[in-house]
Amino acid sequence: VPRNLQARDLLLLVDRSRPAPVSRQLEEQMRCAIQSGAFAAGEQLPSTRVLAQDIGVSRGVIVRVYGQLAAEGYLSLRQGAAPTVRAAVRFDAKTAPPPSAGPRLLYNLRPHLPEVATFPRRAWLRSVRESLEQARSADLTYGDEAGLWDLRVEVAHYLSRARGVLARPERTLITAGSTHALSLVSRVLARRGQETMAFENPSHHILRAVASHGGQAVVPAAVDERGIRPDTIGDAAAVCISPAHQFPTGVALTPERRTALIEWAQEADAWIFEDDYDAEFRYDRAPIGALQDLAPERVIYVGSTGKTFAPGLRLGWAVLPPDLVDDVSQELLNSMLHVSGFDQLAFANFLHRGDFDRHLRRMRQVYRARRNLVVSLLRALLPQHRVRGIAAGLHVVLEMASPAAAAAVQAEAEEAGTLVETIEQHSFADYAGPAGLLIGYGGLPEPSLEAAIRGLAKIVRAAPVDDRQAA
Amino acid sequence: VPRNLQARDLLLLVDRSRPAPVSRQLEEQMRCAIQSGAFAAGEQLPSTRVLAQDIGVSRGVIVRVYGQLAAEGYLSLRQGAAPTVRAAVRFDAKTAPPPSAGPRLLYNLRPHLPEVATFPRRAWLRSVRESLEQARSADLTYGDEAGLWDLRVEVAHYLSRARGVLARPERTLITAGSTHALSLVSRVLARRGQETMAFENPSHHILRAVASHGGQAVVPAAVDERGIRPDTIGDAAAVCISPAHQFPTGVALTPERRTALIEWAQEADAWIFEDDYDAEFRYDRAPIGALQDLAPERVIYVGSTGKTFAPGLRLGWAVLPPDLVDDVSQELLNSMLHVSGFDQLAFANFLHRGDFDRHLRRMRQVYRARRNLVVSLLRALLPQHRVRGIAAGLHVVLEMASPAAAAAVQAEAEEAGTLVETIEQHSFADYAGPAGLLIGYGGLPEPSLEAAIRGLAKIVRAAPVDDRQAA
Repeated sequence: VPRNLQARDLLLLVDRSRPAPVSRQLEEQMRCAIQSGAFAAGEQLPSTRVLAQDIGVSRGVIVRVYGQLAAEGYLSLRQGAAPTVRAAVRFDAKTAPPPSAGPRLLYNLRPHLPEVATFPRRAWLRSVRESLEQARSADLTYGDEAGLWDLRVEVAHYLSRARGVLARPERTLITAGSTHALSLVSRVLARRGQETMAFENPSHHILRAVASHGGQAVVPAAVDERGIRPDTIGDAAAVCISPAHQFPTGVALTPERRTALIEWAQEADAWIFEDDYDAEFRYDRAPIGALQDLAPERVIYVGSTGKTFAPGLRLGWAVLPPDLVDDVSQELLNSMLHVSGFDQLAFANFLHRGDFDRHLRRMRQVYRARRNLVVSLLRALLPQHRVRGIAAGLHVVLEMASPAAAAAVQAEAEEAGTLVETIEQHSFADYAGPAGLLIGYGGLPEPSLEAAIRGLAKIVRAAPVDDRQAA
Repeated sequence: VPRNLQARDLLLLVDRSRPAPVSRQLEEQMRCAIQSGAFAAGEQLPSTRVLAQDIGVSRGVIVRVYGQLAAEGYLSLRQGAAPTVRAAVRFDAKTAPPPSAGPRLLYNLRPHLPEVATFPRRAWLRSVRESLEQARSADLTYGDEAGLWDLRVEVAHYLSRARGVLARPERTLITAGSTHALSLVSRVLARRGQETMAFENPSHHILRAVASHGGQAVVPAAVDERGIRPDTIGDAAAVCISPAHQFPTGVALTPERRTALIEWAQEADAWIFEDDYDAEFRYDRAPIGALQDLAPERVIYVGSTGKTFAPGLRLGWAVLPPDLVDDVSQELLNSMLHVSGFDQLAFANFLHRGDFDRHLRRMRQVYRARRNLVVSLLRALLPQHRVRGIAAGLHVVLEMASPAAAAAVQAEAEEAGTLVETIEQHSFADYAGPAGLLIGYGGLPEPSLEAAIRGLAKIVRAAPVDDRQAA
């Protein structure tokens, strides 16, 4: 039988010395009581008049409290009837399963992970606060599907000065990241009848899956120590490349090859999709500029804050050839994937202040130290293995005797709680280049990194050298 | 000839009473000077030693300033050479065209616009700050494509208590809004061979365009004063409805029709896509609960913060039947459209505090007053026209004699700077129901609203009554 609760059953405490208003205090206590099951469904509460008298507050306070709790679905209020507790909570979040935990993980050395512990929370919060204070109402409502104009101006400035991109805000679109941009471009080109896209062999397998999902037939092009070989692209209508720090091999496209690639695109009347994913981090000299400014009418330049700032922000950009701007904007509108306007406002402020550049500069030093540690440890512990792709980015390649040897080490490392990837995972079926482990150093501070590399080296040394044994 | 700039040319001012560090002050002044063109490309700056001496700061300060400006691309620094200003800014944002301004707009009465001037900036900032302070590093990196677990729990709670949805966090996905959810579901169903989706006639034309873009053949189903007629759906594999406040007619689906619709779905083995777009705002009584809890295994329930909070946030949710969870999550992964993790963290905090419910409650009062004003003005000024769909949402329907009469008023109103929509704009070609103007009252405060409605009524009264004249 449901109780008729009296004021004394409610155990409400009003503390006038606390900064929170009395109504807020009462509301929180009653919400907690209902959520926790202390008041059950169907139980009746005292009237506003009675409860106000009993705990010594004005009746208006209780009216507000009951009103808020009714609005949240915890109470049912009807004229002339006693307020009644509703069966509001239909499941218990505490007992709901969290997302699958996966195997025990000690060290994550996967190649794409940046450090997020150094995320500049204070500076970012300042940008959130300032941008929200300055925002016009129009900024909070439906924005341009191509992105907020002020952010497009700031990003165009940034790409122009930091990456040498010929960027104008009219042709700079805001995306949810590089892969999102690839998804949009794949669909647009497929709709134009341009349905074959070449990818470097090896290249990130997720990019290929997304292009294929977007209607593209995906074909391989060879990569050697000077980068992609334009003579192997064939008759694809577009090629997707990562020239500044090829993923996963880490090679940089040489100037001669850059020229040859542009010539290929002009002759074939084809597009170049330039994925500038981590080029800001170059350690041996100034970052290599983007390819885009050699042929801005042919190159689709994309980048994001995923490696440089925080993957969770889901904020990136694409600088498009004039001929693609309208179609890609339309594709954005039709897939209704727009990027948070609030984040756009904050990031525009953050860029404008120079805080993004400051963060990059700081992170370049952090990553350089980690890279130096990894390279020197690998050279000392595994002198018979070449270490490649060390000039830039967030990972190095440890060459292995064969794909089977790399896979065996990867599997054993995972058993031991250390995640790495292999070149083989990212290559097409016919890949014949060097095998290797991809070792990311972005996400681990130096002491953990050292322990992880020492453990990994032990596994590599103990691994059978003969492929047939390892396979 | 490029100048060799001396310290005195730089006009640098160091104010030690300001809270900003000296290096930050100098950096800002020099950045401004280069951005504004006061220092031109190729001009040389004094060495760190000379400049430090001249303005009386330590040399380390100038080293930091030059370093930051070089990192931002404004300066070129080489060993043994004087620091040189780079041609960094390749375009002048001041002269770049802003996005097209469109015609002179006085009053926007389009039906979907919420009020954003009342956006609770202070409460939202508190949630941003708190959630960022409490965030684990893992929260800032790549998250679950289905959304952050904590937010899925909070949203499931909210939908359960406020909308009567049978929501469990495992089946609750975070999206960029309702239309984004429709885009995902359209693609998933098309891939399963379920390629026909019925839409209410009339219904929002953008929804139909997105479904069609996602691979669905779009067919009409009739709507009368009791809502959608299940007997007119035909053999579609899914139907998209807005039962709580049908868009655009504003009718609510009656209990009998709800039952009939569920029966249809069960017999036809079909899906119901429930777009609960503005049901939180009901003025005559408590909000009507969602349809979803009648058949959670058949109903795809979607909602968003677009009408209730701020469209710019681009944050919504979908509660899916168990059979669709994996496929829609995979579609999210493959289209790489994830929602900002930062916004997710903040919104989870905001929901948890009850701030979202508080905001809804406040806005319900704001909108009720605006609705009452619009309805009483229209009834007084245009007594010969029925006003419909007034029980909920953010717009009313003013019945017109014919589609042509509605279109003529819309065109004349636009000339005068007032935007409205018509039922005809949202109907299929064979629509034969009542014609009407859609008048949104969400985005205008009462004085502007009154002026807008008075102006509109004048145009309606002056419009020719005969269709043939108006067409």
